[in-house]
Amino acid sequence: MAEDLKQAALEYHEKPVPGKLNITISKPTATSRDLSLAYSPGVAEPCREIAKDPEAAYRYTGKGNLVAVISDGTAVLGLGNIGPLASKPVMEGKGVLFKRFAGVNSVDVEVEAESPEAFIDTVARIANTYGGINLEDIKAPECFEIERQLIERCSIPVFHDDQHGTAIVTAAGLLNALELQGKAIEEAKIVCLGAGAAATACMNLIIACGAKRDNIFVLDRKGVIHSGRDDLNEYKATFAIDTDARDLDDAIEGADVFIGVSGPDLLSVEQLNKMAANPVVFACSNPDPEINPEVALAARSDLIMATGRSDYPNQVNNVLGFPFIFRGALDVRATKINEEMKVAAVHALKDLAKEPAPQDVINAYGGAALEFGKEYILPKPMDARLLTEVSAAVAKAAVDSGVASLPYPDFYPLTDLARFEA
Amino acid sequence: MAEDLKQAALEYHEKPVPGKLNITISKPTATSRDLSLAYSPGVAEPCREIAKDPEAAYRYTGKGNLVAVISDGTAVLGLGNIGPLASKPVMEGKGVLFKRFAGVNSVDVEVEAESPEAFIDTVARIANTYGGINLEDIKAPECFEIERQLIERCSIPVFHDDQHGTAIVTAAGLLNALELQGKAIEEAKIVCLGAGAAATACMNLIIACGAKRDNIFVLDRKGVIHSGRDDLNEYKATFAIDTDARDLDDAIEGADVFIGVSGPDLLSVEQLNKMAANPVVFACSNPDPEINPEVALAARSDLIMATGRSDYPNQVNNVLGFPFIFRGALDVRATKINEEMKVAAVHALKDLAKEPAPQDVINAYGGAALEFGKEYILPKPMDARLLTEVSAAVAKAAVDSGVASLPYPDFYPLTDLARFEA
Repeated sequence: MAEDLKQAALEYHEKPVPGKLNITISKPTATSRDLSLAYSPGVAEPCREIAKDPEAAYRYTGKGNLVAVISDGTAVLGLGNIGPLASKPVMEGKGVLFKRFAGVNSVDVEVEAESPEAFIDTVARIANTYGGINLEDIKAPECFEIERQLIERCSIPVFHDDQHGTAIVTAAGLLNALELQGKAIEEAKIVCLGAGAAATACMNLIIACGAKRDNIFVLDRKGVIHSGRDDLNEYKATFAIDTDARDLDDAIEGADVFIGVSGPDLLSVEQLNKMAANPVVFACSNPDPEINPEVALAARSDLIMATGRSDYPNQVNNVLGFPFIFRGALDVRATKINEEMKVAAVHALKDLAKEPAPQDVINAYGGAALEFGKEYILPKPMDARLLTEVSAAVAKAAVDSGVASLPYPDFYPLTDLARFEA
Repeated sequence: MAEDLKQAALEYHEKPVPGKLNITISKPTATSRDLSLAYSPGVAEPCREIAKDPEAAYRYTGKGNLVAVISDGTAVLGLGNIGPLASKPVMEGKGVLFKRFAGVNSVDVEVEAESPEAFIDTVARIANTYGGINLEDIKAPECFEIERQLIERCSIPVFHDDQHGTAIVTAAGLLNALELQGKAIEEAKIVCLGAGAAATACMNLIIACGAKRDNIFVLDRKGVIHSGRDDLNEYKATFAIDTDARDLDDAIEGADVFIGVSGPDLLSVEQLNKMAANPVVFACSNPDPEINPEVALAARSDLIMATGRSDYPNQVNNVLGFPFIFRGALDVRATKINEEMKVAAVHALKDLAKEPAPQDVINAYGGAALEFGKEYILPKPMDARLLTEVSAAVAKAAVDSGVASLPYPDFYPLTDLARFEA
């Protein structure tokens, strides 16, 4: 990160007051009558209603528009296991994005857990405070079991964004890139460098979108995950295939797609040159991608390239997903975020990139036209259509798949976040 | 509660949006540059700083002005053990008061704990997210051990408001009432009906303010707590005195002070008439006091009477305490809220009642003068001087008693809450 950006980021966080979020009161508090409604004695009445029927919490409290962003600080950005407290700026930042893009109230909770079980117990015990839980920056493989158990124990959506948010945005971009390259996902040979939380979720969702498991080569630090290996945990084992390929040099031969969720500079130009014609490279290691986009595009003009960075075209950015996915889930009071909802988000994102971006979005990103093509396979975060399209698609999928507690809302397509404010 | 108040309270909580609090963003988010500071990649920088030095969390996150209001829902208002979710309106209401009166950001956490140990573990694991913890509506005797262990395990202030907030406001009012009645607290005979969380804390603080343990008669459901009883838990046992008094009829004889934290209509006019000349009665059971104030004052014109109700003079209301106590503690980054800080709050409240209330406060409470006397022994919640006086006194006591991490702030006396907003 450049020195001036570092300095600006510290100042942004510190001044004029520390942090990025505030609590505000949404109801009148001018008179003592107001206070007698907000607190004692009036407050006893909504308490009684909720004691009679827990669903009344959605009528009388902020639960229904409140998402907790929860982390144990074990895998923060690219910084690794820096601990829960040091992850707090990220969790608060997530709250900024939830509010800014989807009107979702969000609070961060950093958990100092001595074990995954302690983390699970802690989150399960406080879960009912919220309408949804966004797990964040929890390392693999613990994150899989943590999410699985919390989904089972909680009656509200629990969603590990590093897994599924990343997967949804990646899958949307990939489907568009493959279409532009004239390739069918069912036939594409896909190489995934990295076998952690994001990689696992990406591959699972890509398979749900049509990719064939036998065409997917996942590599961890020891090389290709194949059926001859005996050192695989249960999550990696699901990707073991029968192949003679052992390393990236072997696997990349003739590949249509490279997805990197690993580390900087791990894909060489020589390896890139071994890929099939019209390849797709998602080099998502952040801030330094698996291959420099300028180098890659100079080497292969038939390439479509995406990264995690905002200073190159085709940014794979989770903010395209999680605010709208939770917005849709909350609006129909979904009890979980299931595969149908994730796939609906993928298709909404994919389709949105095919519609030319509005002028305000073009202006916000430098003034050049943003039209479906090799340098525009995903919408931009500032595109207000994300709210109307993605949230609605997710809500509809929740209703159609039977996990919604409310009908598809009559205020969709949603264009006005003011409805969630007093 | 009157039907119209019930209905108004439900509407207040439900419309136009459910709940009473919102999250707002305190920093710019208009441009993609802004977002690159608030979130990736810029956010990595404050994370690194906090990883190096945990104190940096106070510079770069909202921790320093954030109090969690945490309950297990076992003793909610007068409603009893209605469970954590049903307590949520109260906890959110506390957040309203924290913000409204002292600019403190507050979030609620409702904990579904299978045991006190599970509650303690849960709160201890998430504690570092916040700058302070306000425990709320947890039943006795569990609340004592819960608070004790959490104070020990947490490096931030942990304060059970039902105990200490109530005690602070009660003690302030009591000292003023005794002064008006011409009685010394050191010599006063005090009867406390109730031996739960609030009663225990009230008596301990009154002793810290000068009352003599041997002059205090505490009664639980079984009568006077005396040294001959073998059914006392360790908390009640500290109040066991050598006495022949066995019930309220015995104990009330010649008492100077009656403090009720028990239930409705438990003090009869006959018992009131047995008290000493110029007695003081705090009938704090809410909403129905231990004796009706009109009945009591009709029976004894020499009485000073306080209740928990806003529709009678001399309301003992926790909102006079907790917002300002936490404000002061946060402003000097106190590691705990100790006895010195509590006593400082008592004296600040007591002294403030002796200064005539400003005109805006008089107007807010019906227009009659509010001057120190039998019907004005405590300030009113809408009195802005609470912020300047109580917070400053608490902060100073924290500094003087060595539990503050920062010096006494140069912005005291605090008159402008805008300094805590962006």
